[in-house]
Amino acid sequence: MGAMHAAPDAPALLRRASAWVEAHLDRVLPPAGTGAGRLTEALRYAVFAGGKRLRPALALASCEAVGGEPDAAVAFAGAVELVHTYSLVHDDLPAMDDDDLRRGRPTTHKVFGEAIGILVGDALHSLAFESLLERTPDASVARRLGLALARAAGVRGMVGGQVDDLDSTGVAPTEERLERLHRGKTAALLAASCEGGAIAGGARPEQVEALHRFGLDLGLAFQVVDDVLDATGTAASLGKTPGKDRDAGKMTYVALEGVERARARAADLLARSLAALAPLPRSQDLAALARFVVERDR
Amino acid sequence: MGAMHAAPDAPALLRRASAWVEAHLDRVLPPAGTGAGRLTEALRYAVFAGGKRLRPALALASCEAVGGEPDAAVAFAGAVELVHTYSLVHDDLPAMDDDDLRRGRPTTHKVFGEAIGILVGDALHSLAFESLLERTPDASVARRLGLALARAAGVRGMVGGQVDDLDSTGVAPTEERLERLHRGKTAALLAASCEGGAIAGGARPEQVEALHRFGLDLGLAFQVVDDVLDATGTAASLGKTPGKDRDAGKMTYVALEGVERARARAADLLARSLAALAPLPRSQDLAALARFVVERDR
Repeated sequence: MGAMHAAPDAPALLRRASAWVEAHLDRVLPPAGTGAGRLTEALRYAVFAGGKRLRPALALASCEAVGGEPDAAVAFAGAVELVHTYSLVHDDLPAMDDDDLRRGRPTTHKVFGEAIGILVGDALHSLAFESLLERTPDASVARRLGLALARAAGVRGMVGGQVDDLDSTGVAPTEERLERLHRGKTAALLAASCEGGAIAGGARPEQVEALHRFGLDLGLAFQVVDDVLDATGTAASLGKTPGKDRDAGKMTYVALEGVERARARAADLLARSLAALAPLPRSQDLAALARFVVERDR
Repeated sequence: MGAMHAAPDAPALLRRASAWVEAHLDRVLPPAGTGAGRLTEALRYAVFAGGKRLRPALALASCEAVGGEPDAAVAFAGAVELVHTYSLVHDDLPAMDDDDLRRGRPTTHKVFGEAIGILVGDALHSLAFESLLERTPDASVARRLGLALARAAGVRGMVGGQVDDLDSTGVAPTEERLERLHRGKTAALLAASCEGGAIAGGARPEQVEALHRFGLDLGLAFQVVDDVLDATGTAASLGKTPGKDRDAGKMTYVALEGVERARARAADLLARSLAALAPLPRSQDLAALARFVVERDR
């Protein structure tokens, strides 16, 4: 991983993270055609699907922000991406959001069937912990990283947010409910990405805490932007079906306060997340990624 | 946990493990009615469903077999049971085995809906690692236990076995394919239960290895017995629908070689598993559990 040039460039940071993390994931996933039936192909189809690798990029940049070598965070970055991918595969299932298209391609269960869709998610979920614990040299760091990941993924994090999301259909949005939904559904795993990157980089406790707060606010901003894009984007620009949340009567910030105020809210959250970076020695890459997340158009 | 009497009694060992592990699981599961919607109720419905707690009993007895205090293995025993429970909940889903009944009660997705069924499994899966890593004091032991559990649960273990099972419908059984299927679907997690109990109890490497082999053979025996019961049991005796494997054209030992030879095979595997216990200082409880597994009628 070469030194980055002076003015950080989010697309370049994402490409760098993709290259590192995809090489790592290629090593930890079983080779296609080995083992049980179509499972290994389906795992690779789900994982190598052109995702932005935002969470890995945040983990690597958080590691560097506290003075760590990014190599130290690659196993964790890969594990976070495996958890994220498992959640997308399950989220797309017919009993959940019932999506046929993801990043412009048919979803995993559309190609391999629903049973394999469930099992691909389950296999990636286990593989996240397996690869993390196996490839993090220090046992105490491995344990802290595994814990951060499991908490963010579970009932009090991502899964809780999914249930809030399911329950939000046809419910009048309130700011409090929306924040809880977004915190669980998206922000918990983004916060863990930053927190874990910092832990892998040998951060002091107050740095870990600062990066957790950064990731939490950025995650909330991310989800507000998602609501805006769902309301304003097209299938061609998004690579997925727009307007699904609105059509399903889901609770969103756009439904609560309209597009313009939702955009202003995302900008406020971005400012708050950037403020959390102030005490860190080398946070310019994280700041660039944060701006990119809020200014993206897909 | 009082000292066991001289002649070990498998039902008493299972009751003891249930009491310990259920108290632990009650602590690590979020209280019902907290957090997201119906999720916390559904988690408890799935976990407190009258299971035998065989895997926890094996983990605790393996810990004691190498001279450890069983308390040291409770967090691991609970984690194994959470992984086992998540796999049952997903296995019962309409896209998988489509079971309405489990242990004589409606399955989780029948009560709470299919989306919650998927998410309950996912939440239990994360909670297994969260609770294990959080409540195992030694970081190096925690890492080894997490790794053993993740490997047994994943592509090369339980999930791989599920895919083999899906793919076995209408396929002529061979001994090799059946053993691979059973190894993944059942034996990998039973082997990990014994191996992890031994690690938690401070076992030497050759003891860990012996208990892994014990659990693997016992797991194969367990699955052969399952095939026999599916062919010979009734809904009342099993607490679930019998004959499903046969009706679905699934690959089983009964289909391969008939009930009597399958029973003889289970007895051989039991003998082999018991032989692996020979070098251990205190293995009588494990032997009693192994005999119970092979002689059960449900």
